[in-house]
Amino acid sequence: MSTMRTNYCGLVTEELLGQTVNLCGWVHRRRDHGGVIFIDLRDREGLVQVVCHPDNAAVFKAAEHVRNEYCLRIVGTVTNRLAGTVNANLASGKIEVTATEVEVLNASVPVPFQLDDDNLSETTRLTHRVLDLRRGQMQHNLKLRYKVSMEVRKYLDNLGFIDIETPMLTKSTPEGARDYLVPSRVNAGNFFALPQSPQLFKQLLMVANFDRYYQITKCFRDEDLRADRQPEFTQIDCETSFLTEQEIRDMFEEMMRVVFKNTTGIELPNPFPVMDFATAMAMYGSDKPDMRVKLEFTELTELMKTVEFKVFNSAANLPNGRVVGMRVPQGGSMPRSEIDAYTQFVAIYGARGLAYIKVNEKAKGRDGLQSPIVKNLSDEVLAQILELTGAQDGDLIFFGADKAKVVNDALGALRVKIGHSEFGKKAGLFDDVWSPLWVIDFPMFEHDEDGDRWTATHHPFTAPKDGHEDMLETNPGACIAKAYDMVLNGWELGGGSIRIHREEVQSKVFRALKIDAEEAQLKFGFLLDALQYGAPPHGGLAFGLDRLITLMTGSESIRDVIAFPKTQRAQCLLTNAPSEVDEKQLKELHIRLRNEPKVA
Amino acid sequence: MSTMRTNYCGLVTEELLGQTVNLCGWVHRRRDHGGVIFIDLRDREGLVQVVCHPDNAAVFKAAEHVRNEYCLRIVGTVTNRLAGTVNANLASGKIEVTATEVEVLNASVPVPFQLDDDNLSETTRLTHRVLDLRRGQMQHNLKLRYKVSMEVRKYLDNLGFIDIETPMLTKSTPEGARDYLVPSRVNAGNFFALPQSPQLFKQLLMVANFDRYYQITKCFRDEDLRADRQPEFTQIDCETSFLTEQEIRDMFEEMMRVVFKNTTGIELPNPFPVMDFATAMAMYGSDKPDMRVKLEFTELTELMKTVEFKVFNSAANLPNGRVVGMRVPQGGSMPRSEIDAYTQFVAIYGARGLAYIKVNEKAKGRDGLQSPIVKNLSDEVLAQILELTGAQDGDLIFFGADKAKVVNDALGALRVKIGHSEFGKKAGLFDDVWSPLWVIDFPMFEHDEDGDRWTATHHPFTAPKDGHEDMLETNPGACIAKAYDMVLNGWELGGGSIRIHREEVQSKVFRALKIDAEEAQLKFGFLLDALQYGAPPHGGLAFGLDRLITLMTGSESIRDVIAFPKTQRAQCLLTNAPSEVDEKQLKELHIRLRNEPKVA
Repeated sequence: MSTMRTNYCGLVTEELLGQTVNLCGWVHRRRDHGGVIFIDLRDREGLVQVVCHPDNAAVFKAAEHVRNEYCLRIVGTVTNRLAGTVNANLASGKIEVTATEVEVLNASVPVPFQLDDDNLSETTRLTHRVLDLRRGQMQHNLKLRYKVSMEVRKYLDNLGFIDIETPMLTKSTPEGARDYLVPSRVNAGNFFALPQSPQLFKQLLMVANFDRYYQITKCFRDEDLRADRQPEFTQIDCETSFLTEQEIRDMFEEMMRVVFKNTTGIELPNPFPVMDFATAMAMYGSDKPDMRVKLEFTELTELMKTVEFKVFNSAANLPNGRVVGMRVPQGGSMPRSEIDAYTQFVAIYGARGLAYIKVNEKAKGRDGLQSPIVKNLSDEVLAQILELTGAQDGDLIFFGADKAKVVNDALGALRVKIGHSEFGKKAGLFDDVWSPLWVIDFPMFEHDEDGDRWTATHHPFTAPKDGHEDMLETNPGACIAKAYDMVLNGWELGGGSIRIHREEVQSKVFRALKIDAEEAQLKFGFLLDALQYGAPPHGGLAFGLDRLITLMTGSESIRDVIAFPKTQRAQCLLTNAPSEVDEKQLKELHIRLRNEPKVA
Repeated sequence: MSTMRTNYCGLVTEELLGQTVNLCGWVHRRRDHGGVIFIDLRDREGLVQVVCHPDNAAVFKAAEHVRNEYCLRIVGTVTNRLAGTVNANLASGKIEVTATEVEVLNASVPVPFQLDDDNLSETTRLTHRVLDLRRGQMQHNLKLRYKVSMEVRKYLDNLGFIDIETPMLTKSTPEGARDYLVPSRVNAGNFFALPQSPQLFKQLLMVANFDRYYQITKCFRDEDLRADRQPEFTQIDCETSFLTEQEIRDMFEEMMRVVFKNTTGIELPNPFPVMDFATAMAMYGSDKPDMRVKLEFTELTELMKTVEFKVFNSAANLPNGRVVGMRVPQGGSMPRSEIDAYTQFVAIYGARGLAYIKVNEKAKGRDGLQSPIVKNLSDEVLAQILELTGAQDGDLIFFGADKAKVVNDALGALRVKIGHSEFGKKAGLFDDVWSPLWVIDFPMFEHDEDGDRWTATHHPFTAPKDGHEDMLETNPGACIAKAYDMVLNGWELGGGSIRIHREEVQSKVFRALKIDAEEAQLKFGFLLDALQYGAPPHGGLAFGLDRLITLMTGSESIRDVIAFPKTQRAQCLLTNAPSEVDEKQLKELHIRLRNEPKVA
């Protein structure tokens, strides 16, 4: 490979027996055993055992002084390990390298933690990120991340997609999430924004005749961070002209199958199931249902509209009210403590309680049921509940009754929680498979409860279903969008839509969103302009790369698949960014700090 | 390909004769000829001629209404063109498509310019960038850009390089160029900086055991813009461990050969010539000499130290003075007007004049020379000049005499100017080839004339030559760096170095640069820290992708190889970025505008 090195440590196998190898790597462990020094030498491909015999004085002396994480160059001969000392966990486990030269390329001060310590705090790991990145799991995660992005590139390249870079310094359009701003020095008082996505630029590229575009690129959102959010994140961003929604979905579903297969060996189903938004919300209370969980909602809203039981009745009669049951097979054995814990859990989502019925013996009617709420419901209603949910002896039924949003959020989360619980797994309510799903036919608009206005469910450039154009202004709530999300194991992997390619439809959508002509021109004039010059039918989608790799590696946090991530306070503990800057810099940018007390 | 389209327009050839094709594209030109309508339909792969006959009434009627840049879907039959109407310039030039259906996918308002107009102002092109991008040259440039980056990825992938993303929101280190700053909302009064390069992060990745890293990524510099600069630019950034300078240069020289060959068919020389910095400055006055130009400097400083002629004598005796001659073969025929123009040209670089001697007839001595300065020089000195420059009858010698920097800049630029002139080409002073060059052995430090201190020639993380470590503090001016630049046709394509991997050497360099321990810790503590944990020997380089593609496509401006560039006033004419933002946004970021008059 080079003058310093002939082989990677982790790839020295018995095929090289008897040969001389030059290795470069780090001391993973050093032990003195029967007067011989053994060094586990590590590089990015793995470990190899290096043996330093006392009969080679120079080698032995050098080896005596090395410590963990010293960077060494070793020359040695590949020899068989003694019988009984073979390590089946290593590719190099059958051999060892008998050192004839040991050169210290660089010493190391004692490391603050052992690299194979799995119980490090995240603060320790992020502060010493460089050492943390030497750990096997992080090496694996970032290598897999690379493999995935390269497989994506190959797949798209074969289909004629072209990677075109879009600007990082762009225009602030304060819709959706908060922008990161960049003050301009040359244009005093003006600001660039970092892109939340290349959405409009990729549409312009379609108008500009590029036909098929992709980019694996950074996007930015200045939002309060959750476990799976970062200020900067990476998107696999794609757009094509002249394809139908179905063709786009097929193309990217196949991409995901190929990428999974070629990087992890996992075979995703073919085809992916498809579910419309309305069904997903009705059955699972979520637009990204985890299909591995074998639990479903039963709609009880109509039934409860006329019952006397206030909790159910008043919820069912709310303008946006909903009452559902969720049958949990074999849930009758669930102890009271577990039900109490679930009651607390759904409270996080705003549910003010968690009604349930245990079905002990259906045949006995009311007497066969065990529940605090049975007394409030008539025999007829109880019979209907059992009938509709299909509950059997030994089952349990949970109920949600509130505004639809609360019911969906609370019971939707409970559904996943139970599915993933010990109980759920034992009761066969969880299939441990890779379970993708397309969710389609999203509504164009959602009603903003605060402002009494409509907001775009996806974004304002999403096309309505054919024939729904006329309803954009007359009945926005009924408009369905040509939008689609790809869901995997309950995570939204990506989403997209067919875009509006006609200027008059785009203007209608802006009007439905109460963006008047002047504002539309100011913010999106360049798009409206472009649409007038024979814009082609086009659409696309974007995948979150960080999230995809988090899922593929089974990582607990998105931060485990990013080399240098920010904390949940949006800080880099390694470099101490963000930091104070010189007054001179601020002056050049025509800004000053507000005299507010620091909220550091 | 899809339900809408079976073939790309530009790829319909005689192999498809008799078949029905579905095409989608734009009306490039429409003409009525003998009662038949011909449409040149364009997509990203090229043009095809569509024929609409009047005997198909629906087709003819639709075709009558279409105008330039309408987006159409055409169904038709591939037929032979009539003899004599074959167009050899098109892949589809032997056939035409007889339309059986014409569908207008989207109309277009009249375009503000013809797409094949080559005399558009840049303002027009950038304002209507979407239409500008439909032009053949821009389509070609961005496709080539993609091909190049994909070839780079393939080459590096084969060598085990891994693409690892480094942060865009990082720490401001106000050295070198000016940072773009991003105010932090969560950490009041603090700022991120956009990266000027991933330099330190890639070094950290080497310390973290990744062995071979690359990234094709955006970098940012808030500098006053020249023709070949953009606020954001794209770097092919690479770093490896355990390779020597020579091995790194070989690896990336081969990359450039492979990329040129596979994308343009151009075969670059093997190997590239190598020249040290001192020689390049001595012979060409430039560290990125255009080797296609067959002109060289002759050093005359020593000779001129003792002459009486003040102009030469005083320059030669300056502490940083230099006197050179540049022989221009056959330059004797150059008219006075051309010499005057060159005199004005070198003034741009600070030269206060441009002395010359025309060599009419050497054998006649002083009388055979024609020059305003001959009278100031002795016979002996004149003879030496002729001897040293090797001038022959019919040649001309230009002189530079000033501070070395002025001489190098002025005569270096003049050298290129003459080489590229009509005269230079006729006189055989210009080889029209691809001429790469490695320039190596740069000095570690340059003397900052204003501040009386040393600055890093490359950057402060560059390693000194072996054995030069001790001179870092005792004789910084004599230290040579393990730094290398790749030059092509006089453009710096990229550069890099072996980095410092020992903490004590890095600290010495900081001290030589008058960065004290406290400041070093504050700004680069994370690097010094990392170097202590067995940092491996490592090095790398970075190429400017924009510049490479500009060179490959022969574009006049870097803006012709970027989809959505900024102007020289750092503005995007398409989206009007940067722009004003809401007071609310500024408040959230804890900043306010200074009350200065706008310099818009």
